[in-house]
Amino acid sequence: MLTIAVDAMGGDHAPACVIEGTVQALQESGNRFEIVLIGQSEKVEPLLAAYDTASLNLRFLHAPEVVTMEDIPAVAVKAKQESSLVKGLKLCKAKEADAFVSAGNTGAQMAASLFVLGRIPGVLRPTIYAYFPRLTEGLTNIVDIGANIDCKAEHLVQFAEMLTIYQHYAAGIEKPLTGLLNIGEEEGKGTEMLKQAFKLLKEADSQGKISFIGNIEGHDILKGHATIVVCDGLVGNNILKFGESIPEFLGTLFRTSLEKLVISGEMDQHNAAITSRMFKGMLEPFDVETFGGVPFLGVDGISIVGHGRSSSRAIKNMIYMAEHIIERRVNEHIAEVMTEK
Amino acid sequence: MLTIAVDAMGGDHAPACVIEGTVQALQESGNRFEIVLIGQSEKVEPLLAAYDTASLNLRFLHAPEVVTMEDIPAVAVKAKQESSLVKGLKLCKAKEADAFVSAGNTGAQMAASLFVLGRIPGVLRPTIYAYFPRLTEGLTNIVDIGANIDCKAEHLVQFAEMLTIYQHYAAGIEKPLTGLLNIGEEEGKGTEMLKQAFKLLKEADSQGKISFIGNIEGHDILKGHATIVVCDGLVGNNILKFGESIPEFLGTLFRTSLEKLVISGEMDQHNAAITSRMFKGMLEPFDVETFGGVPFLGVDGISIVGHGRSSSRAIKNMIYMAEHIIERRVNEHIAEVMTEK
Repeated sequence: MLTIAVDAMGGDHAPACVIEGTVQALQESGNRFEIVLIGQSEKVEPLLAAYDTASLNLRFLHAPEVVTMEDIPAVAVKAKQESSLVKGLKLCKAKEADAFVSAGNTGAQMAASLFVLGRIPGVLRPTIYAYFPRLTEGLTNIVDIGANIDCKAEHLVQFAEMLTIYQHYAAGIEKPLTGLLNIGEEEGKGTEMLKQAFKLLKEADSQGKISFIGNIEGHDILKGHATIVVCDGLVGNNILKFGESIPEFLGTLFRTSLEKLVISGEMDQHNAAITSRMFKGMLEPFDVETFGGVPFLGVDGISIVGHGRSSSRAIKNMIYMAEHIIERRVNEHIAEVMTEK
Repeated sequence: MLTIAVDAMGGDHAPACVIEGTVQALQESGNRFEIVLIGQSEKVEPLLAAYDTASLNLRFLHAPEVVTMEDIPAVAVKAKQESSLVKGLKLCKAKEADAFVSAGNTGAQMAASLFVLGRIPGVLRPTIYAYFPRLTEGLTNIVDIGANIDCKAEHLVQFAEMLTIYQHYAAGIEKPLTGLLNIGEEEGKGTEMLKQAFKLLKEADSQGKISFIGNIEGHDILKGHATIVVCDGLVGNNILKFGESIPEFLGTLFRTSLEKLVISGEMDQHNAAITSRMFKGMLEPFDVETFGGVPFLGVDGISIVGHGRSSSRAIKNMIYMAEHIIERRVNEHIAEVMTEK
């Protein structure tokens, strides 16, 4: 049976939401896996007491320290060895757990995952991706989104290769298409690094490692021309955060506009409520909580990071995601391709 | 009286829209300035014949060649010396015109402006910015948006200084706030270039050249924390194009959602039409045509570039913008600050 370590202290709504999501995952799945919940006993145990934990495949592990959102990643990892973050990853390293899930400090989780688990042989730099809604079916996945800035061309190619494997085995996409995010579509556009990346991505395509469609531009992300959009983490991070701010921006515009219609009498309360509901549904694809989290790609183990705002549903989905990645042997497939030459 | 050279051949709807916008600007302003319309006589003159040009302060100048959207900028500038683009800029260089306006190939206009007009003394690299709507009053202006990729820290600082001058003198903003687009707010974040830019922007602030508020992130653009967002052109170009794709994406989601409500009978046709109108109005701030164009900053002359999709209204607004920039002596102010040490 699989064992999944869950960071009870990670996220804005921790530990309550994490506990709730963990309990839900076990109940819903019929105790299909074991969960080790890790956190400060004085905070977690009183909340756990509210659930019938005797019927659950759940163990609690005390971790006296907590890595906060304010902690500096590299510092926290070394200074807080007794944190739920470091202890959870150490369980994975010792093969006492098969995966680790957290909605805490992303930078610290990345640093700790790399430090404790190490890299998959052949991987130059582990990476992290994010997904965007799009007009065509499925999602657009952007890599890297901030874990690696100042990338070399070889890094971008590995990001594309790893995400291709992930999308193929974990998301079940036969041939995920990769586009190189650039300032124009034509070959030869962009910085020297991007020109070199274009060349290497073409090579990876001819070796059957990825399906490369060439350069794409910022407006192609939401259109969905590519399933995998590869870029330096500086570009990806800014696009991701810009995208995440769209719902709030549009929501504010929407409320102001709708209010005007109601005040002027052009629209009655009933239709305003219907319009409001429709608009909320429209923006749902931008909601980061819908899907749970994403795994770090390239670390030698499974470490899934969720958004700080993660709800119990997001935590539950991250636990299922961990199970799925283990079963589909994603890391083994990454290791195979990364050590090929 | 000011003379403004207008590229009749630039833009998707040229020359018809350009002629219309030019005529409107002269009529509306009461022939406040003179316009030299430049283009292929066989295409422009038949369309001009539909207007009472005798009453307008308008001259026509024949240019046998046309720079198209497909032309490679550096090549077109050298090969098409008889194009409306090159001839218009040469009029400015010869002081026979005070400004040049075009909605044609942006890259070619940038290259030609630099080639024909040269740089303002002290300017390392001319640049181009774009504006975004935001939650607070006014607009967020992003610089650079693709004219310069692989920037050095000194370039970013000059972009901020030039745009500060422009926003101050042309847009009338007393103290436009500048933010450095980065992957985190804390000082010390980002690449070596961004760390250096942070330091230099702080210095420029202490010299009173800009008002620097520190690092900002992608989600701050629409919030409006800064009036000027400075970044490398690779980042800015991708964010700009991503942003421009939002209306189409949301429009599609909106139509699908609204149709469902009408088909299911939840909303009647009357209210659906009101909702539709409201939604269209909401997305208007994203409409690039609303404001006209933007000037290249740092070239030794006034060269204003519009979106390829420019309507006659956009052309008209670009002509007014040219007049305004000349009157506010923006380039003289840039020259003063750029040669200060």
